[in-house]
Parts: sequence; structure tokens; C-alpha cells
Amino acid sequence: MQMIKDGQYKPLPLQNVEINDTFWKPKININRLHTIPFQYQQLIETGRIAALKLKKDGPVPHPFWDSDIAKWIEAGSYSLSKHYDPELDQLIDDVIVLLGKAQEPDGYLNSYFTIVCPENRWKDLRDSHELYCAGHLIEAGVAHYIATQKKSLLNIVCKYADYIDTVFGPEPNKLKGYCGHQEIELALIKLYRVTKNDNYLKLSQFFIDERGREPHYFDEEQKHIKGYFDDLFRTFDNLKEYNQSHKPVREQDQVVGHSVRAMYLYCAMADLALEIEDVSLLTACERLWNNLNGRKVYITGGIGSEHKYEGFTFDYDLPNETSYAETCAAIGLVFWNHRMLQLDCDGKYADLMERSLYNGVLSGISLDGKKYFYHNPLASLGDIHRKEWFGVSCCPPNISRLLASLGEYIYSQNENTVSVHLFIGGKGTFNVQNQNLVLYQKSNYPWEGDIDFTIELNQETEFKLKIHIPGWCKDAKLSVNGETFNIEDHIEKGYAVINRKWNNNDKIRLILPMPVERMYSHPDVRQNVNHVAIQRGPIVYCIEGTDNVNNLHSISLPSNPELKAEYDENLLGGIVKVTGIAQHLDIKPWDDTLYKSVPPEEKHTELVAVPYYAWDNREPGPMRVWISEK
Amino acid sequence: MQMIKDGQYKPLPLQNVEINDTFWKPKININRLHTIPFQYQQLIETGRIAALKLKKDGPVPHPFWDSDIAKWIEAGSYSLSKHYDPELDQLIDDVIVLLGKAQEPDGYLNSYFTIVCPENRWKDLRDSHELYCAGHLIEAGVAHYIATQKKSLLNIVCKYADYIDTVFGPEPNKLKGYCGHQEIELALIKLYRVTKNDNYLKLSQFFIDERGREPHYFDEEQKHIKGYFDDLFRTFDNLKEYNQSHKPVREQDQVVGHSVRAMYLYCAMADLALEIEDVSLLTACERLWNNLNGRKVYITGGIGSEHKYEGFTFDYDLPNETSYAETCAAIGLVFWNHRMLQLDCDGKYADLMERSLYNGVLSGISLDGKKYFYHNPLASLGDIHRKEWFGVSCCPPNISRLLASLGEYIYSQNENTVSVHLFIGGKGTFNVQNQNLVLYQKSNYPWEGDIDFTIELNQETEFKLKIHIPGWCKDAKLSVNGETFNIEDHIEKGYAVINRKWNNNDKIRLILPMPVERMYSHPDVRQNVNHVAIQRGPIVYCIEGTDNVNNLHSISLPSNPELKAEYDENLLGGIVKVTGIAQHLDIKPWDDTLYKSVPPEEKHTELVAVPYYAWDNREPGPMRVWISEK
Repeated sequence: MQMIKDGQYKPLPLQNVEINDTFWKPKININRLHTIPFQYQQLIETGRIAALKLKKDGPVPHPFWDSDIAKWIEAGSYSLSKHYDPELDQLIDDVIVLLGKAQEPDGYLNSYFTIVCPENRWKDLRDSHELYCAGHLIEAGVAHYIATQKKSLLNIVCKYADYIDTVFGPEPNKLKGYCGHQEIELALIKLYRVTKNDNYLKLSQFFIDERGREPHYFDEEQKHIKGYFDDLFRTFDNLKEYNQSHKPVREQDQVVGHSVRAMYLYCAMADLALEIEDVSLLTACERLWNNLNGRKVYITGGIGSEHKYEGFTFDYDLPNETSYAETCAAIGLVFWNHRMLQLDCDGKYADLMERSLYNGVLSGISLDGKKYFYHNPLASLGDIHRKEWFGVSCCPPNISRLLASLGEYIYSQNENTVSVHLFIGGKGTFNVQNQNLVLYQKSNYPWEGDIDFTIELNQETEFKLKIHIPGWCKDAKLSVNGETFNIEDHIEKGYAVINRKWNNNDKIRLILPMPVERMYSHPDVRQNVNHVAIQRGPIVYCIEGTDNVNNLHSISLPSNPELKAEYDENLLGGIVKVTGIAQHLDIKPWDDTLYKSVPPEEKHTELVAVPYYAWDNREPGPMRVWISEK
Repeated sequence: MQMIKDGQYKPLPLQNVEINDTFWKPKININRLHTIPFQYQQLIETGRIAALKLKKDGPVPHPFWDSDIAKWIEAGSYSLSKHYDPELDQLIDDVIVLLGKAQEPDGYLNSYFTIVCPENRWKDLRDSHELYCAGHLIEAGVAHYIATQKKSLLNIVCKYADYIDTVFGPEPNKLKGYCGHQEIELALIKLYRVTKNDNYLKLSQFFIDERGREPHYFDEEQKHIKGYFDDLFRTFDNLKEYNQSHKPVREQDQVVGHSVRAMYLYCAMADLALEIEDVSLLTACERLWNNLNGRKVYITGGIGSEHKYEGFTFDYDLPNETSYAETCAAIGLVFWNHRMLQLDCDGKYADLMERSLYNGVLSGISLDGKKYFYHNPLASLGDIHRKEWFGVSCCPPNISRLLASLGEYIYSQNENTVSVHLFIGGKGTFNVQNQNLVLYQKSNYPWEGDIDFTIELNQETEFKLKIHIPGWCKDAKLSVNGETFNIEDHIEKGYAVINRKWNNNDKIRLILPMPVERMYSHPDVRQNVNHVAIQRGPIVYCIEGTDNVNNLHSISLPSNPELKAEYDENLLGGIVKVTGIAQHLDIKPWDDTLYKSVPPEEKHTELVAVPYYAWDNREPGPMRVWISEK
């Protein structure tokens, strides 16, 4: 294995990327104009902001509340950095003032513990989400500083992190604990990157190294307290797997437990692997990624097969109606794969990131940006619909911060290489070989696969341009200034590598044919045997009741006939729909008979499929991704 | 609608029936020799018997414990009546002595309340199973009296019932309550039938009539107590549906809630309909039966689609891996259909009774009679196995009492009609038209469908002989003394009716062809679309891992080829197995790929199916009833 830093990339920062396309730009605008202001209203109306005033007669906060505020600040900060809005800037400043006042003299900052049970500070790490909330505050502080250059929140979270560093660590007088919900680990690395303060990196490493060691911290801790979720957690089969503390992280090889916890842990492991060049952490990440990608991810990029644990079950267990596939978990999967890409520019990570982004993440928010799915099943009987807010409302601000920072996920670079991971129109501004490079990208992706890149340079410059060739594409073509470029001869881990001297106005054209594909599952996915899913480009399709005959489960696709793709500008904000001839089972001759020795009769029907991400944006009804095939 | 009593039949009592066949007789012997003694040991070892001694330092009883003892006495009594065993007789007498001593002076008898919380007597009807336990004691008292002519237990339960009658009833000074788990209603009707004491019938009617009336008894009651199951029941969506008190029983039209509670209620409704000639109760039973038989019963005759409520969900929702299908519920379904048959000799009731008996009931006990399923799923990944006993151990003695009394379910009669519902070899002794009739039955059922009946009479006697023509049989043939009898011209509601003067040694031969059938579900059963179940005669088949390639879910049956049935005396105690050629999906080319745009390859495989009731009697492994069909 090569040394880690040899392969290291850095994401092109948000500030250097403009998104200007027909697919994502409108969604980012909706996020800015509707979602972020609406979420602020929710923070007000639910008492989350008022709780920061720490009044005994004010709202009684829930342990997670601070994290919702933090994620909203983070989303708002990203948004400010791309589209300045003085009103939002002021709102954020006002909340930061409240956070500053809520911070205790020693640096501690947590509305729940300060108001409800100050005597239990750091005593219920397993359940209380105390360090988790701290982590989100830190992420917010970093984002706010980068976006605005203001240090108001950064100072608060540094003071908090400095205090945490006096409480936790390997020294004999410090606690050997870590959080039951991972998050602070990745946040501290972000804080280290912006402050260059080594202590934050070391503290993150301490939390990661300590996790799962024996004697088990939570076993000891819970002898002295009844944890906040104890009644629930007592019913769990394996609570240590649930929060990934069943083994030291470097020994973990199966993706287990709560999906969001797992993703945030793996993000931090990848970050730390890169920062301290720890190959054992990278190896663990690769092992876990293989287990997930080969056995535990829905075709939508959703993860988590089970409601009770909000998490993973066993290999190949991917139920469709009862899938959990939490929006936050799919977002976490994007975070993790994006980090893996910086360690190892392998298209498999870009593929999984793209799969989640266009399907299992985007389904989490309504087209109007006002309603959210907490879980994203792959089949519904018609009783599952997006909601405006949740008691535990982690998903809404999470999707908001991802949309507001989407630019960061498109490009990476190192000294002499520029990498394109996602096909999102706009431009990226790089410094490569000490030259200023602007890379323009233009397409009608994800509906069409023709993508044009244009180079803007002041002088001829030699560098590698790596362009992701998606795993879903069988016959990609590429040309440079009109000349065919042989991808097969220049492919490295799923990226076409064009190493040449580039000049101003050089043009690259990538053609990704997008036939409608029928997708099949590994035969061990028992839920999908003899079922097919429709995919075109990165978009996974579903069938909805409103477009099809009732009883979607009884529709079956013949294995041969053609499926047709057609752009419909009036449907669901403009999408490519897929249509074809199918059969469905006739219930008429069955009356009140439940079992017969003759099979049901089949009738022809027109099948209409729409992108999975866009489901439940019209009248309520059933939905399915996996369709019978005969 | 005809008046009820015109169609009324009475089951030929156990005393008048001898079972002598190759299928059931060995099972009844195992029940007598192994199961009943083993259950007594369990009653001893778990402290259930000792708890009757009411010692403060003795075992602390669970609210259900008395019912387990009662059902064991009931099973033992039936067994004694067919096969006298002085040791068992003595054991039962000894337990009855304990019950007598445990009875309080006013007649009250409940080990849990007497020891644990006497102050709560009758205060937690919703949760405490107090009247439920009383009901089982009453059933035991009736069975013991009929079997032994001893009044020891009958007197105890009459005293208890008399006392209950002073507590509950329509009079102003009495409680208007009823039990959260139905059972006493049907027990009181049994007690009425044996004692002719009208009070018991009236009390049963009171409980049935009162159920579901407003103001709701349980709402009022639970204002004054925290019910025994309150923490659990608070998590229920609809607790009133769970215990079928959501509406007055005559208004109920959907089978809802806890399956065993529902069955015991419907049994009592059918009994009461017959006793008081209440057509509205019969109509309600018919409505509920149509809902269940048309939409809510597994092909095995199991009922209850859901674990949490141990009960019914919505129409056509019949998941296979997660089915509950409690053994007790299938037994309750046999009880109810047997009662419906007495009201209306319609083959549909005999069909459902037979379906449950040979499949969903019989699967509840291992071939050696020593282990039990509490729930009977229609698919298993290999992690579900019978157990020797359960904390709540209702199922073991329930199946034991059904096996010990199976003779009662075979025949019914009224003045001038003898009805054959089940094909179980042996003989029944009737009094018809004041003549002594012995009807001999001989067959190799359920493995072969040729059934021979022989009449024994002292003199020529005219009566109707009604023989059930099973719904699964398409081309039954019948002959009387060698002459073809045209069934089509003499079929009434699924019974061939032979109305003639019968003579000694008359012979009837019924031929029920038993091809292997592929069974299909109503297209609205989404879990079974494009799946087929194998059935032959009354026996539903399954495939087990031990006989087939791994990954049973990936096996599919082509829609045409032949399935072969063959008796194998060495397999599972002697069964007809079904074999055929099928396909399964090859996992080899998939490696670590989860999704592909090419379908899995198919390979030929030999399929071996065995009776569902006999599964999990060899090495542990997966099982499926519904098999893919292509």
C-alpha cells in the first residue's frame, strides 16, 4: 500500500465553486429561499432558540436541540458564502450571541444539561448526545468562520473544545470516555484544519482510539447513572454494536449498528487516517466500505434496513417496505465517500456518493423544499409521507447543510491533478502548478449524459485532469478539442486521466450514454429475487400509484420489451420519465377467495416510472422501486 | 335465514369415537405417553403446582399460571376418557385437591391474586386474565367430570362460577365488566351444558353483550389502577381492537386484534347463538368468518400477521417471515369452525378446520411430542426452532388438549343426519332414529384419498349420511355398495348427502384424487405475488434447507413441469414428499457486487418439499412455504 499522503487530494473549497445548472441550482435556491428560513421558524416555534436563554421558566430543551441549531447555522453559513443575505447574516449573529451567553465560564455549552441536570455533566456519555451536540457546534463554528471570516462562533467553540480537552484524554486525571453518538471526532478534525491547533487533532484521535476498548467505558459509566435512553436501550440486542463500541475501531470489519453513528465514525476515521497517515485506519475504512457496498446498501444509496435500531442488520438483508434508510444516514454516506475519495481517488467512492446524492439523499426533501422524509423506504403502501418537522429533527438541517455546501463535493485537486467527481454544471477555480485555472462544466445532467468542459488558463500548463467515468456507464466516449481520447488506455480506478499541456479554451467533451437499465440484485437479497429496478444514468426510478394501476405489487415487467425514456418538463419540476408495457394481475375473478389452484390472470398495463427522489410530491399513494419481472 | 335450531348439529362426543389410523393415532399416543407427562413435569419444575399451595415463601405465580394447570387437567381428562391410566388419574386428583384448598371460602380461586395482590381482585379485568383463568378452570372441571364422572373439580368450578355470578351481571349492585382476554364466555356455556344451570348461560351472555359498550368499562377501570400490562399496552395503536372491545360484538365486521382473544370470543358467540337462537350473533360470526377466510388467514390455517399484537393486521397482509400464526390461534380457529359447523353444516367450515388442523396446528408440536412452536412462520432464515416450554406457556397444553379430544371433531349428528367432517380412521357410535349405528372409517389419509366407510346396524334404518367433500378436491367419486353415487346431484354446501335406508354392512367408498397442486394467492397478497405454494390433499408443503440448495428464496419453480408425490416411510415418521425440477440463482458470478444490469444466471436444481407441519424436525435450517414461480 502506498503512503497515504502520496494519494491525498483536497476538495476544491466551496468558495471556489459556482454551481450553475438546471438540476441543482434551483434546488439550492429553494434551500436558500424557503428551507433555511423555514427551519429558522421551526427553531423559534419549537422553543429551541428560546431554550438558549436558559430560563428556568422557558422551554425545557431536549438533549439534541443544540445540534439542530448548530446544523442550521452551518447550513446558513454555507449559503451566505455563496449568496450573501444580510438578514440571514444578522439572524445567525443573533443566535451566536445567545450561544455566547449560554456558554458557562469554563467553556461548557449545552442548553439541556445547563438547564435540566447540570449535576450530570459528562456522566451519561452513552445516551446524552453531549459531545455530539458539541461536535455540531464546532462544525457550525468552522463553517461560519470560513464563510464570513467572523470569529464570533469559532471563538466560542474553541473555548468549548479547549475545555473538553481538559476533561477527556489519556492523562491519568482525565476521563477515558467518548460519545455514544459519534460526531465530535470529525468536528475536531475540521477545527484542527482551520486553527492548526494540534490539541484538537489529538483529542479526536483519543476519542477514536478509545472507542471499544476494555474495560468498556459505558459499562462502567452506567453503573452510576440510569442513562437517558436506558429503558429503550435495555431492549436492544447489542447496544455496543449499535454505537460501534463493540471493538476497537481498527478491528471492526462489519458495518453494524445505528447507520448515522457508523457514518460519522467512518468519516472521522478517514479524516484521521489522512491527517496522521495511519494506514490501519484506512484499511479498516476500506474493509467496512467493502462490507457496506457489497452487502448493505440499497440501490438508492440509502442505508439502514431496520427501524428499531435505525441501522444495519445482516448481509444482504434489504427489505423494501420496512427499510429505514434515514436521510441523515445517506448524507453521512456522501460525507464518508467524499472523504475516501480524497484518500484514494477511486471511482467506486464517487459512484456510491453519486448514487446516494441523486436518490437516497434527495428523496429526503420535497420538491418545494418544505417537507422531509426521516426514513426513505423503497416501497410504500401509501401511508408514508414527508413531514414539515420532527420531534427529533436531525434530517431537515442536515440535508440543508449538504445542499448549501454541494459545491465542495464536485472537484478535488492535489499539486498536479484536478479531479472531477460529479457532473454538476458551473465552474471551479483552481490553483494548479501555480497557475490560475478555471474549469467550466456544462451539461443537462442527470437527464442527458453529454458533458462539456472548457479550460480557462493564462498560459499553457501541464497537469492531469481526472474525470470520473461512472460505474453505471458502459460505453463512455471522450474527446479533447474534437479528437477522440481513448478512455480504455487511460483509465485509473474509474477515472479517465488526461495528462497533457493544457491551453486556454481547450475543450473536453464527455459522452455518457444513458439507456434505461434494468437493475438486478445479488441473489442473496431475498427481497428482490425475480424483481427488477429501473435506473437511467445515476437516477433510480420508482412507480407510483398516481401514474399506474392500483396494486403496484402485482405489476410485472416482461423480461424483453423496451422501456422508453422521455423528458417531461411539466412533470415533477421537469424530469425524464420512463414508460413501457407491463402486466398486472387481475383481481376480479378472485372475489372473496384467498387461495386457488389456478394462477391469477394477467392484463396488459402501461407502466410509468418517475425518479425515486421525486416520489410523494403529488397525491398520496403507494410506491415501489423493485418491480416483479417475469 | 332459517331458524338456528333447524340446522343444529351436535358433535359426536369423544366417548363415542375411536381413532384408529396410521396418522393421528400415533400422535395421540405420543401426546399421552410423552407430552402430557412432560407438561406435568414442567408444571412442577416451574413452580406452577407449588404456587397453588399459596405459601408466602413459595413460588410467586404469574397471572396466567392457573390456566396452564387447567389446560393440562383438561388434556389429561380427555386422555383418561380414551385410555385409562391410574397414575394420571391420581396426579389429576392430587392437583384438584390443591385447587380445592386454594379456593377461598367465597369460591374465589386464583393463585396470583390470592398470593400477590388480593386487594386488586376484579380491579384489573383489562390486563389480569383473572376471568380467563377462571374460564380455563371451568373447562377443565367440565372435561374432568365428563371423562371420569368425578365431581371433585366440577364442584370447585361451580362454586367459583356461582361466586362470579354474584359479582358480575346486569343487576345494579354488580360489576358491568368483562375479561380483557376472552375465554370465560365459552367456558360458562360448557358448564351450562353439563349442569343445565341457566345462570351460567346468562352470565356468559352478559359478558358477551357487555363487551364494547359505552361508557367503556376498561376506560373507567384503568382510571383507578395501573394495569398489569400497562407499560406495554400504552404503546399499542388500538388496545380496544386488540381485545375486541372496540364495538359491541354484534356490530363487529372486521377480524381485528389479538388472534387468540378473537377466536375464543367468536367461539362463545357461536355457542351462544345456538343456545339462545340469536340470529344476530350468527350473522356477526358469518361476517367475521368471511373477512377472515377471504383476507386474513395463511394457507396453513395460521392466523395473526404480526408479532407485536400477536394478531391481525389489514386485509391481504400476510407476511411469511414475520407471520405470528400462534399455535393457540390456529387451535382457536379449529374450535370456532367446529362450532360453526354445528350451526350450519357447510363444508367451508370443515375446509378451514381441516386446513388449520393438518398444517398450522400440527406444526406447533414436534414429531416426538416434546417441543413446541409458539408462532408458526411460513418462512424462516434458519433461526426459528421449537422450544420445550415458554414463560407464557399457553400453546403446549392447548395443543395437547386438542390432540387428546380430536375424536370430537370428526362427526356430528342431529335427529336424522350423521355428518362426517374429517377423514380420520376408526369408528363412531351414534344413536340415530333410535337405532345404534356404528360407522367405521378406514383410509390412509392424508397421504391417500381413498376412504372406506362401513355401516353397522341391527336393522334397516333410514337417515341422511353427509360426507364432507373437501374444497381442495376437484373430482371426488363416491359409491355405495359398489354403485356409483352422483355427488353433483346430491351436494349440499360441500357435503355429499346420501339419504337412504341403510343396512348392516353397507359400504361407502369415497375417492378423493390427490394430485400435487400449485396454489396461488389472491393478487392483493403482495407477499405472494409470483409465488406458488405446494399442496396435496389437505397437506401444505414447504421446502427446507436440509433437502434443497441453500438460499431457498432463490429457488423458482418453472410454471409447467411435473411435481411428483412419493411416500417415504423413513422420512419424518413417514410422509409423502413432493419432488420436482426447479431453478435456483447462481451467486458465483456476483462476488462482491450488489447490483448489476444483467440478471443472475439460473441453474437446475432438484426440489424436495415436505409437509409444513413436519418442518424443523431435522437439522436446523431455513424453510419456505411460498416458492417463486417463473
